[in-house]
Amino acid sequence: MTSARVYLDDAGSAPVLPEVAALGEPPAGNPSSPHAEGRRARAVLDRARDLAAGALAIDASGLSFTANGTEAVNVAILGAGRRLPRGRRVVTWAAEHQAVLGAVRRLELEGVAVAVLPVDGSARAGAASIPADAGLVSVGLANNEVGTIQPVSEIAIRARQLDALVHLDACQGPRWIAPPLEEVDLASFSGHKLGAGRGGLLYARPSLRLEPLLFGGPQEWARRAGREDVGGALAVATALDACRRQRAARSSAAAPLAGSIQRLLESLGGRPTGGPARLANYATAAFTMVRGEDLLLALDLDGVAASSGSACASGSLDPSHVLLAMGLGLDEALGSLRLTLGYETTAAGVETASGALRRVLGKVAARA
Amino acid sequence: MTSARVYLDDAGSAPVLPEVAALGEPPAGNPSSPHAEGRRARAVLDRARDLAAGALAIDASGLSFTANGTEAVNVAILGAGRRLPRGRRVVTWAAEHQAVLGAVRRLELEGVAVAVLPVDGSARAGAASIPADAGLVSVGLANNEVGTIQPVSEIAIRARQLDALVHLDACQGPRWIAPPLEEVDLASFSGHKLGAGRGGLLYARPSLRLEPLLFGGPQEWARRAGREDVGGALAVATALDACRRQRAARSSAAAPLAGSIQRLLESLGGRPTGGPARLANYATAAFTMVRGEDLLLALDLDGVAASSGSACASGSLDPSHVLLAMGLGLDEALGSLRLTLGYETTAAGVETASGALRRVLGKVAARA
Repeated sequence: MTSARVYLDDAGSAPVLPEVAALGEPPAGNPSSPHAEGRRARAVLDRARDLAAGALAIDASGLSFTANGTEAVNVAILGAGRRLPRGRRVVTWAAEHQAVLGAVRRLELEGVAVAVLPVDGSARAGAASIPADAGLVSVGLANNEVGTIQPVSEIAIRARQLDALVHLDACQGPRWIAPPLEEVDLASFSGHKLGAGRGGLLYARPSLRLEPLLFGGPQEWARRAGREDVGGALAVATALDACRRQRAARSSAAAPLAGSIQRLLESLGGRPTGGPARLANYATAAFTMVRGEDLLLALDLDGVAASSGSACASGSLDPSHVLLAMGLGLDEALGSLRLTLGYETTAAGVETASGALRRVLGKVAARA
Repeated sequence: MTSARVYLDDAGSAPVLPEVAALGEPPAGNPSSPHAEGRRARAVLDRARDLAAGALAIDASGLSFTANGTEAVNVAILGAGRRLPRGRRVVTWAAEHQAVLGAVRRLELEGVAVAVLPVDGSARAGAASIPADAGLVSVGLANNEVGTIQPVSEIAIRARQLDALVHLDACQGPRWIAPPLEEVDLASFSGHKLGAGRGGLLYARPSLRLEPLLFGGPQEWARRAGREDVGGALAVATALDACRRQRAARSSAAAPLAGSIQRLLESLGGRPTGGPARLANYATAAFTMVRGEDLLLALDLDGVAASSGSACASGSLDPSHVLLAMGLGLDEALGSLRLTLGYETTAAGVETASGALRRVLGKVAARA
């Protein structure tokens, strides 16, 4: 290795934003305590909620801070799914994140009717296939693994016709495109994917009743009991605000760089994955004859941080459930490669990474 | 106010320990990612788990980090309670924290048999009253509101005889006494009460199967899905380690100071609450003729941060469920006052606070 490392796993975890790093220590008081130290912490928590609400253009009373995106997704899906009337189904798609699929499968075990619908060859969810007995529909803002932007508006319109609730899994995507919260009933956000380093956020229409997962104090509008992480909440809100302000310019800057990596992957034998409409920072492909994990380790040794899909499933050696859902074969689903650019990725970094990709994937091509 | 503020709400939220404040920023990588950035985060998380295990003298494979104490309590009680064989009861006591009581009541709603046992006049739980059909027994290390140390060993022995699991709610107490983890199957810890500022920790005997509350990735031995808060985990572990090393000396220093406040409260008309064996930093009393909230606000204006019980219930204006369980009347349960010293509380601070207590409680006594 002669050059500095290049981090191309923004979708796995975004580097902490400078706006977040500059925040400093939050007040140590308990926001539920009425004394001055408690009120100081409460004021920061309130400010965080207002900042997040502004960044999302919704009312602050719909926002509850959580520990991470997985918790927000679970509170939304389990919380609304457990209150569905009998005969109404929870609907999602086979290429959604494992937190969504895990929560939906859990509801199925509890006796709730569910439908996990197929996606097309680019992992795109279709509104037309939503069954008429849908009661809760969960769709991602963009696919976590291949970056395909989902037709959220179409799905929300169809769900409204069926009088079904809509949960938007916005854990992946808000760094690059705006989540249309006005069209949905529930939405979940992941702090570390926004550049906050930690934390999560749940949006739920204020009038919506959710079955809580945790019991205790009345924190977070009684939607999430337990001592609030004031610093984490402020970090999430600050990151959401920074993303709102920066996402258009950052997308414009990232798109040509991601495009050049995408072309390189294809020229080196990769089968492109992901839809024509996708997040600007994604370059993805599937390779036969090589496992994604092996590619990652070789790239890592050569100074490039990459991913073979979801970090939450890393190390499992299982094939990618997303690529399988897209109709790829088992050999391809084991050879998934995801390179995702961040806000700070430079043309020079992409050039460096391209050299590593040529070396590592060149060897694979030669072996094939 | 002529003097600096005195913080006497250590039990509500402990100031962040200097050992924790010195930690600096954690690595930003995702511990589930196999690249170098991810491995760096994983190494810190592993180190945090080992440090916590050392501080608790147990095996690291029994430890899962959580967002806070309430989450740890809920994972323990709901996770074990939902797996109890039919006919076995979940047992706790009426003066336990609302996270424990909330989780137990939730199980009752789900059809699990529960028993919420009475406590004695000092909020002490008794082993003798545990029913023979107990399957899971939850007891606190010390009562959150009045500081009474619970007879955990006696309760654990009785539970063992009945083949029941034991959950130790160690959210309050580990700063001052050692939690006997070798005697229990499950234990929960609250980071902000330890001086970590945030985070929580669950201990579960490694062979014990728990029903998870969150679904998604296999993080934290599959006991708690979702992106780990690496910095929070290290903060909790560091605080646990600091408490282990300091608790004996800190207790010796706090006891005479807390004793002087306790005597003052009683001389000003307070009825003492809490057992003879209690945490060294507690001074508590119940007052008739005045609401605890009003006392707090008056003390706060006079520069002293105090509490009327659990911060998780603050603002509710409900009487203290702990004092009611101890047999006090409604008028007294509305007039609960809790002053808790911290590691940094000085004799001068206690002297200043005593002046404020004389002024505030003297007015109450004059009004009566």
